Amino acid sequence: MSLTFTVQDTSGTARCATMLLPHGKVETPIFMPVGTAGTVKAVPQNILEDVGTQILLGNTYHLYLRPGHERIRRLGGLHSFMSWPHPVLTDSGGFQVFSLNKLRKVTEEGVSFRSHIDGSSHFLSPERSMEIQIALSADIVMVFDECTEWPATRERARASLDLTLRWARRSRDYFLAHAEEVPWFASHDGQTQNLFGIVQGGMYEDLRRESAERLVELDLPGYAIGGLSVGEPRQHTREIIESTLPLLPADKPRYVMGVGYPEEIVEYAAMGVDMMDCVIPTRAARHGLLFTSEGRMNIKNLRYAEDQNPPDPACGCMVCRRYTRAYLRHLAMAQEPLGGTLNSIHNLAVYLDTMQSVRDAISLGTLPELLGRVRSRAGVHDVS
Amino acid sequence: MSLTFTVQDTSGTARCATMLLPHGKVETPIFMPVGTAGTVKAVPQNILEDVGTQILLGNTYHLYLRPGHERIRRLGGLHSFMSWPHPVLTDSGGFQVFSLNKLRKVTEEGVSFRSHIDGSSHFLSPERSMEIQIALSADIVMVFDECTEWPATRERARASLDLTLRWARRSRDYFLAHAEEVPWFASHDGQTQNLFGIVQGGMYEDLRRESAERLVELDLPGYAIGGLSVGEPRQHTREIIESTLPLLPADKPRYVMGVGYPEEIVEYAAMGVDMMDCVIPTRAARHGLLFTSEGRMNIKNLRYAEDQNPPDPACGCMVCRRYTRAYLRHLAMAQEPLGGTLNSIHNLAVYLDTMQSVRDAISLGTLPELLGRVRSRAGVHDVS
Repeated sequence: MSLTFTVQDTSGTARCATMLLPHGKVETPIFMPVGTAGTVKAVPQNILEDVGTQILLGNTYHLYLRPGHERIRRLGGLHSFMSWPHPVLTDSGGFQVFSLNKLRKVTEEGVSFRSHIDGSSHFLSPERSMEIQIALSADIVMVFDECTEWPATRERARASLDLTLRWARRSRDYFLAHAEEVPWFASHDGQTQNLFGIVQGGMYEDLRRESAERLVELDLPGYAIGGLSVGEPRQHTREIIESTLPLLPADKPRYVMGVGYPEEIVEYAAMGVDMMDCVIPTRAARHGLLFTSEGRMNIKNLRYAEDQNPPDPACGCMVCRRYTRAYLRHLAMAQEPLGGTLNSIHNLAVYLDTMQSVRDAISLGTLPELLGRVRSRAGVHDVS
Repeated sequence: MSLTFTVQDTSGTARCATMLLPHGKVETPIFMPVGTAGTVKAVPQNILEDVGTQILLGNTYHLYLRPGHERIRRLGGLHSFMSWPHPVLTDSGGFQVFSLNKLRKVTEEGVSFRSHIDGSSHFLSPERSMEIQIALSADIVMVFDECTEWPATRERARASLDLTLRWARRSRDYFLAHAEEVPWFASHDGQTQNLFGIVQGGMYEDLRRESAERLVELDLPGYAIGGLSVGEPRQHTREIIESTLPLLPADKPRYVMGVGYPEEIVEYAAMGVDMMDCVIPTRAARHGLLFTSEGRMNIKNLRYAEDQNPPDPACGCMVCRRYTRAYLRHLAMAQEPLGGTLNSIHNLAVYLDTMQSVRDAISLGTLPELLGRVRSRAGVHDVS
């Protein structure tokens, strides 16, 4: 596999590092915007670059169903397909199969499910997920896992974790046998994609430990903590991350899937998380929720109807430099598509600027001060 | 009023000119993108600038209903509200009252109608339209007219034209009495908005002549030809424009409202039209219809599913420089909002580049060659 991960500075459990991937360099800790169907909803690629996006996440489940992984393979892979020449990561499809399909059927072999688009029948297995992800051709791909639901009994969490570990081995075996089939293999000097493992185990610390230890034996280039953001209280999320991180190799990237709010991603980075992704900034934006230095702002609130301030006077993004709260409120109330676009750009800028601040603070040795500011703000009431 | 119009070059009936307005200079002939509700749907303002937009059109009807003209007045007018520091034109609301309201009631005084948003009752008259347009504060405002439907009997067209002329006088009287109330009057050295008249008369050339002659007596700084694009055959549109244009003062801007397709705007500019606006480029874009140098392209067509060419290899817009037909097709099929945005940007670039070519051709004396190329292309079958 073709990933190098070099820690540059540390501050307590946090670290900043440089991750080299076939399509470029990523400075961690990093937040990855989610480009579900080959597009970060409503945001053009050049603006993603402008706000500092280093690596995008694509969803295997969605891209497999539409436009189809074979089509993307023939078009040269996701980078070429969506004109994003920078690093990309794909998930395994596991999370969406579980969250979008009530009629799925899980066996040892894999998962049968129906398309949420047209009801057609499909089957995903570790081998099939790898085949699809190799066609999609992201720089980082994920093992096919069963995302344990919440709440889950200990017995259920153990069975699910065992299945995920067997699937991880099958994912790795298929990946290693087919890694050279990635569309850009020849044009990138024989580099390949990089397969990350996923720790499961529900909300049970000892099961998480077992999952982590057995996954680490597979000697993969990076590890993720999955099965979070499935409805559990935030305190559980935090505890699981805190107790699991030290079990993962310190010299490899550590990725927490599907988190979080701006104040949370700072906390997780301080614990030592290197990579995070979440739909919150873009999904919230489309519903009119903006993240600002003064808290969360529901831009549809009547109080903003004639407010000529920028969304966040402390933000330097292209939206805050040009537009007023009054205008963004109007766009949201009139359901104008530009509203979703501008709100998404602002929220992504906040997330990416936040991680830049964390990296700077780690390098400068000022992370405790940054954490103090974030925590004192989180105690303040939201502005609306 | 505060408009100067200086013809720079002519070529047959065509001319290129410089129009100075309170918020800047406009080089004509020009196409004006339509920003219905204070936004050109799905396109950020900086990109409108990038594609060469010189002047935007706002819809009085839509902005009056939402967010309301008094709110926009308090926010400093449309330029300030939508962060568009360049020229703006508003229509009178007349066209939408007629096209969006089946239950409208027309009297000598004005028009009663119901909001298409919430069914509430409203009343527009020449005075009310002027009051609203002064609050919206565009550089160019339009008299309140009755847009004659098509088909209309001669009797009906005459009655409608007479009403429109009485309303034009009332519009002018109200405007002149209140022109200094525009929000930016003091900050723009006492400049005011500019009121344009609208020629009606249905598809009857003699009625159009009468309408034009009586309007010109009002000595307004510009004149529009209205009542077109209401369902009539294209040949009628062309004939009415051709016969009406010579009746309008040659030293003032001549504006044809609500036209047209790319090949048509070239023809109309060649006839001597200085200004045009139309929702076609953006509305078509949202439905997946792209204008290219090879004809119209329905990007949803299966033939583009794996086509790695740019939408138009001859176009240098930011969309054609970065994205493929295959990607735009995927966005359209998946109903991703980025599809509408990128398609709109391309189509607007085509329209604005087209008018730039016309201006260049007039200056260089090569308009006949340009017209020849456009006409030969128009004879070619569309690419899909």
